Amino acid sequence: MTTRLRKIIGEMEGYVPGEQPRDGAHIKLNTNENPYPPAPRVLSALRGATDRSLRLYPEPLGDSLRSLVASTYEVRAENVLAGNGSDELLSILVRCFVGKGDRALYPVPTYTLYDTLITIQEGEKTTVDYPADFSLPEELYSREAALIFLCNPNSPSGTLVPLQQIEKLARSVTGTLVVDEAYIDFAEGDDASALPLIHNFPNVVVLRSFSKSFSLAGMRIGLAFAPAEIIAAMIKVKDSYNVNRLSLAAANAALQELSWMKRNVKRIQKTRKSLTRKLKSLGFVVYPSQANFVMARRPGENLKSLYEELKRRKILVRHFDAPGLQDSLRITVGTPHEIETLLQELAAIG
Amino acid sequence: MTTRLRKIIGEMEGYVPGEQPRDGAHIKLNTNENPYPPAPRVLSALRGATDRSLRLYPEPLGDSLRSLVASTYEVRAENVLAGNGSDELLSILVRCFVGKGDRALYPVPTYTLYDTLITIQEGEKTTVDYPADFSLPEELYSREAALIFLCNPNSPSGTLVPLQQIEKLARSVTGTLVVDEAYIDFAEGDDASALPLIHNFPNVVVLRSFSKSFSLAGMRIGLAFAPAEIIAAMIKVKDSYNVNRLSLAAANAALQELSWMKRNVKRIQKTRKSLTRKLKSLGFVVYPSQANFVMARRPGENLKSLYEELKRRKILVRHFDAPGLQDSLRITVGTPHEIETLLQELAAIG
Repeated sequence: MTTRLRKIIGEMEGYVPGEQPRDGAHIKLNTNENPYPPAPRVLSALRGATDRSLRLYPEPLGDSLRSLVASTYEVRAENVLAGNGSDELLSILVRCFVGKGDRALYPVPTYTLYDTLITIQEGEKTTVDYPADFSLPEELYSREAALIFLCNPNSPSGTLVPLQQIEKLARSVTGTLVVDEAYIDFAEGDDASALPLIHNFPNVVVLRSFSKSFSLAGMRIGLAFAPAEIIAAMIKVKDSYNVNRLSLAAANAALQELSWMKRNVKRIQKTRKSLTRKLKSLGFVVYPSQANFVMARRPGENLKSLYEELKRRKILVRHFDAPGLQDSLRITVGTPHEIETLLQELAAIG
Repeated sequence: MTTRLRKIIGEMEGYVPGEQPRDGAHIKLNTNENPYPPAPRVLSALRGATDRSLRLYPEPLGDSLRSLVASTYEVRAENVLAGNGSDELLSILVRCFVGKGDRALYPVPTYTLYDTLITIQEGEKTTVDYPADFSLPEELYSREAALIFLCNPNSPSGTLVPLQQIEKLARSVTGTLVVDEAYIDFAEGDDASALPLIHNFPNVVVLRSFSKSFSLAGMRIGLAFAPAEIIAAMIKVKDSYNVNRLSLAAANAALQELSWMKRNVKRIQKTRKSLTRKLKSLGFVVYPSQANFVMARRPGENLKSLYEELKRRKILVRHFDAPGLQDSLRITVGTPHEIETLLQELAAIG
């Protein structure tokens, strides 16, 4: 009667998600949710799909969503896979590419889930530090790895690596490059995405999320774009019915009303600009963000107490208690009113 | 520019789910869905939860569902984890217990997903054949393994191993025993479940599903019950937000109206009894089923053509093209009308 849990699982620490208070009393700027609601059409599609058909399994590959994604993003259906959030797609990718001892490579600081997923697989982690300006580290080009992650725009910095450099990276690496574009819809201009690369590179995967720009974090929908060979491998690894009927319905409806998402993105870009300027005037170093959050730094100063003081004042932001990040806060771009309140409290705290 | 896909992923075959035709023209008796709809209260709870809060992430651990499950099943919240279907919970368990070369053990034929999940982990599979009557193979008691699966009632046989034998198995194995009870609500009597064992054994996990008895296959909700140490490990491995807001709402509402589920179970048990009797009178060997399907066998005869003939007649059942199963069909217990139509067609085919 022993459990025989794997040693690595006993030893590891799990990924800790940001706080999710349920009291509704906080201004919530800690987990990069969209402050604006999903499109009314999405909500009505969900209500319409809420019927006795829920007794039936969903389509294993979400065929109707796959077709719509293909036409929307100008790829083929065989290049698309939907997931239970892009987190699930990341987990599937790590299981596709990283066996025990296989190397995974990524620049840090970044989304810490990569670390967790590679640890579970007993993969070998190789990280390269971002330089102070969060430009792409040259060292990445020459390192050997089976899987390479690039979060772009990066979290928690919000910074964007230009497409030209990603293309160079895809050409020089020896394994598969996963460009995690959870925040790409918030970038200025239409040419930041690495999506076109999947047509010319056998080893590029691009991930998207409906959680942020489409205001659907609660529905857990992510998309993987990749050459057909990689999608076929991911299908072998994924659970049969990984995306439920209502999430498929929500994603379908959201893609039929892109203008709603784009309008909200424009509002967030505008608020981001003013937030960045005002944080700077309060003495923070603020990285140029192309995401729906900004990283605000007071070099050398541990901002944990500032985070806690804001929390006492019912404002949640994210503080990462990790080397190199303790002097920073990651602040989600909320509504103009929420951001105004934050700035007033920051000014009051001093 | 190479992909560096793991060799094992390239070589493996993925799990093939049953057909999911979308034309609505078939009588669908192939994937063990419930022929009756979810409770009206579940549908109204889903419509009620479809609002702007979908922009927010779900609770990482589904705390309100966890509490309700704990009180419903008389366990503690720390003994419960919700999953994106019990398939996800199986995948999490395999990643918790089976590293490269670690042994997993289970009797066959059974749910083939176990095989797929262990292959992905490069675990060592040890299977033991069920005897002709599908009683628990004695050999299981003495084999060493990190993880042992027992699907109970088993699929595709529908047969049930008594609790006393499961308890003996839990005591004698050297690793963790996962009792997959996706179909347990359809068993006669209230004492078939291994759930009470989690209080006395550190190494027992019990899985449940909302897909079958609760008529919610489309929402993907599963539950794991286990000692707190195992649940804590599973939480490290699972995706942060693995169950979405609407699935949590559906599960909550379903548990508040257990009488709906129980009424449907009684109807299905009644139909199962008459289906079993009539299949026998048509010359099939039928195993005593405690699930919402029956396995009907014509020993030595390949029933693939019968499956195909039924499909031509717009009735889908499941035929497994695997050694030892080719002479069987797995037939979901549908409505009395659906089953009557099936029996008429079987009689007509002869």
